[in-house]
Amino acid sequence: MCSLSAILETVLYCPDLRAARHFYGTVLGLSEYSHQPGEYLFYRVGQGMLLLFNPDRSRQKNLAGATDQPPGHGCSGSGHMAFAIEPKELPEWQTRLVQHQVPIESQVDWPAGGQSIYFRDPAGNSIELATRDIWP
Amino acid sequence: MCSLSAILETVLYCPDLRAARHFYGTVLGLSEYSHQPGEYLFYRVGQGMLLLFNPDRSRQKNLAGATDQPPGHGCSGSGHMAFAIEPKELPEWQTRLVQHQVPIESQVDWPAGGQSIYFRDPAGNSIELATRDIWP
Repeated sequence: MCSLSAILETVLYCPDLRAARHFYGTVLGLSEYSHQPGEYLFYRVGQGMLLLFNPDRSRQKNLAGATDQPPGHGCSGSGHMAFAIEPKELPEWQTRLVQHQVPIESQVDWPAGGQSIYFRDPAGNSIELATRDIWP
Repeated sequence: MCSLSAILETVLYCPDLRAARHFYGTVLGLSEYSHQPGEYLFYRVGQGMLLLFNPDRSRQKNLAGATDQPPGHGCSGSGHMAFAIEPKELPEWQTRLVQHQVPIESQVDWPAGGQSIYFRDPAGNSIELATRDIWP
């Protein structure tokens, strides 16, 4: 029986992709894979992809329901995702976020071990940097 | 300089977690890590985690803004994510989805190579199974 052993695409919605590009590309330093201004912004992150969509556009895709095209999708509100970091990298990330005027909203020392910091992207999505041991 | 090389958590929102549990656990066969009925449902997927939240609850978390607790978040609408599969597994997945009465909304043969199938979870999120070569 087949089993699913990897997530290939993680998605967030960012109506202002110009602001998102500064945040994800410059502040977080992700490697840009593809960019369609006003529509989407794709980053490669290790074995996976982070896809940022303008939901006003992605919702309008394939309204005719063509079965050989990707269907539409789109969310509003504050999404969430986490990147894995090494424990020793945490201080450097904290410094880098401060330098870029990104407020750190929370810092959590998990009772079972591991640490996370949380901050917001320009769309209000909650972004987390976490050490892997938060999921033992 | 630090760089982000892995996504640790991918998030979708599912108001009906009971329906989501059947879909992600039974239909997709994911390995459940943690479950708080009415609040969240966590699955381990390879090196990452898929976190499903009831947005009506996750939005209400930490409204006081405690800086040592995770902040609230929550989306409405149709989110999106993709799992990686091997090309040879595609027919088996198609059969399995049909057996579980999950309609396949689209099947895309990408011009540059690779294939994807798309279907909806009970919350209307667009779920994709894709071969890795769609991102060369």
